[in-house]
Amino acid sequence: MEKDKLTIIKVGGKIVEEKETLNQLLHDFSSIDGFKILVHGGGRSATKLAAQLGIESKMVDGRRITDTETLKIVTMVYGGLVNKNIVAGLQAVGVNALGLTGADMNIIRSDKRPVKEVDYGYVGDVKEINAPLLVSLIRQGIVPVLAPLTHDKQGNILNTNADTIAGETAKALAGYFDVTLMFCFEKKGVLSDENNDESVIPCIDRKTFKRYVASGVIQGGMIPKLENAFQAIDAGVHEVIITKASEIGKNSGTKVS
Amino acid sequence: MEKDKLTIIKVGGKIVEEKETLNQLLHDFSSIDGFKILVHGGGRSATKLAAQLGIESKMVDGRRITDTETLKIVTMVYGGLVNKNIVAGLQAVGVNALGLTGADMNIIRSDKRPVKEVDYGYVGDVKEINAPLLVSLIRQGIVPVLAPLTHDKQGNILNTNADTIAGETAKALAGYFDVTLMFCFEKKGVLSDENNDESVIPCIDRKTFKRYVASGVIQGGMIPKLENAFQAIDAGVHEVIITKASEIGKNSGTKVS
Repeated sequence: MEKDKLTIIKVGGKIVEEKETLNQLLHDFSSIDGFKILVHGGGRSATKLAAQLGIESKMVDGRRITDTETLKIVTMVYGGLVNKNIVAGLQAVGVNALGLTGADMNIIRSDKRPVKEVDYGYVGDVKEINAPLLVSLIRQGIVPVLAPLTHDKQGNILNTNADTIAGETAKALAGYFDVTLMFCFEKKGVLSDENNDESVIPCIDRKTFKRYVASGVIQGGMIPKLENAFQAIDAGVHEVIITKASEIGKNSGTKVS
Repeated sequence: MEKDKLTIIKVGGKIVEEKETLNQLLHDFSSIDGFKILVHGGGRSATKLAAQLGIESKMVDGRRITDTETLKIVTMVYGGLVNKNIVAGLQAVGVNALGLTGADMNIIRSDKRPVKEVDYGYVGDVKEINAPLLVSLIRQGIVPVLAPLTHDKQGNILNTNADTIAGETAKALAGYFDVTLMFCFEKKGVLSDENNDESVIPCIDRKTFKRYVASGVIQGGMIPKLENAFQAIDAGVHEVIITKASEIGKNSGTKVS
């Protein structure tokens, strides 16, 4: 039997934190046919609130060190401000959104990241996604809006990377739906020339990926992003698309398969 | 056919904002048999965060004037910090909690309060509760944890009194369940002697209420609280109990019928 289509879209903080780009996103997202999930970040607002409160934002390799005070901030910003504004905005355009952290209905359980070279603090590594419950909600017409927060089932909220939440959710739901996972970032896709925003590589498979890495066309932060995409494909996700939020629904971007 | 029992508990900010009283509440709440809903406040944390951000908290008759900046604060504090800490805490004691604002799944729609003598700003008066959806969630074993936030279905979150949310939810669900509505505040119940915390009036009906008001035993803020309780009873709520959070499950407090 053919599986129903599910689109999982991950958008970074910048898109959802500015009124104009948020409104565009809400409109584009509402136009997507079929079942869908939105996963959002919110790092800029968290950094801003922390600064206003005199708390320094410490980052290691782009990941936020989450001490007790920072955990409060991300819980407020991701779980409250950003998530609820998106939910209210989606309701206004007819999408029956439900804002969730991993703690809600125990949707995503994680373990606090072990301290190795770096102590990331209250940061969670995803351990278990409650796929049947998510499937049941989605089939009832509810559109989950996932904040980048999980919990350890011992009473602690844990700050969790939004890309990881999107990827793990896509993998967990791949058995139930024909899943398209869309990562939105600041470029229209993976570029063959970093100085030319229009030089989007339309399709990448493992073979071309290796070639691009070897030749230096693909480098830096794009390498782990694509490795995650290939892992999702391996786990049964139908398609991973890397694109810009404003391109949602335009059938553009880089398709990873 | 006998209806299933549903207990709706409203707790103020103070209880859920301090680690020790929160843990006691989570324990007591988890011990309640049958279906249940928790409604919480969070005003103290909102006032504290506002002060840290240099924003003055303006109150009129105990109600917060909610301007744009204050709306952000209550969205963060009520919808994020307080709600998600309660949800994570309940998950740790085996309660499958789901944190909700009125915007989530369009559970509670409100209208922005019209400006009369006072402009309360982004404050909502409850208009519609999505009872069938709440009933469906509850029957699936999910325990809603309601933050004092609603939405206008036009994209705006609105700050909404937690007592009102608890009362309106109780009324909306009275047709589906045998509802007990429990308002927790700082005293063990309605007192016959305000200087004696143990002088709890065990039962109040309309007749005794009028007598107590006439004699001055019941006065001030307790009068509208009890009037709300009688309205709930009129709307089919089985029982309203006014008590202290630490007394939950002790079959004490003041029973309004």
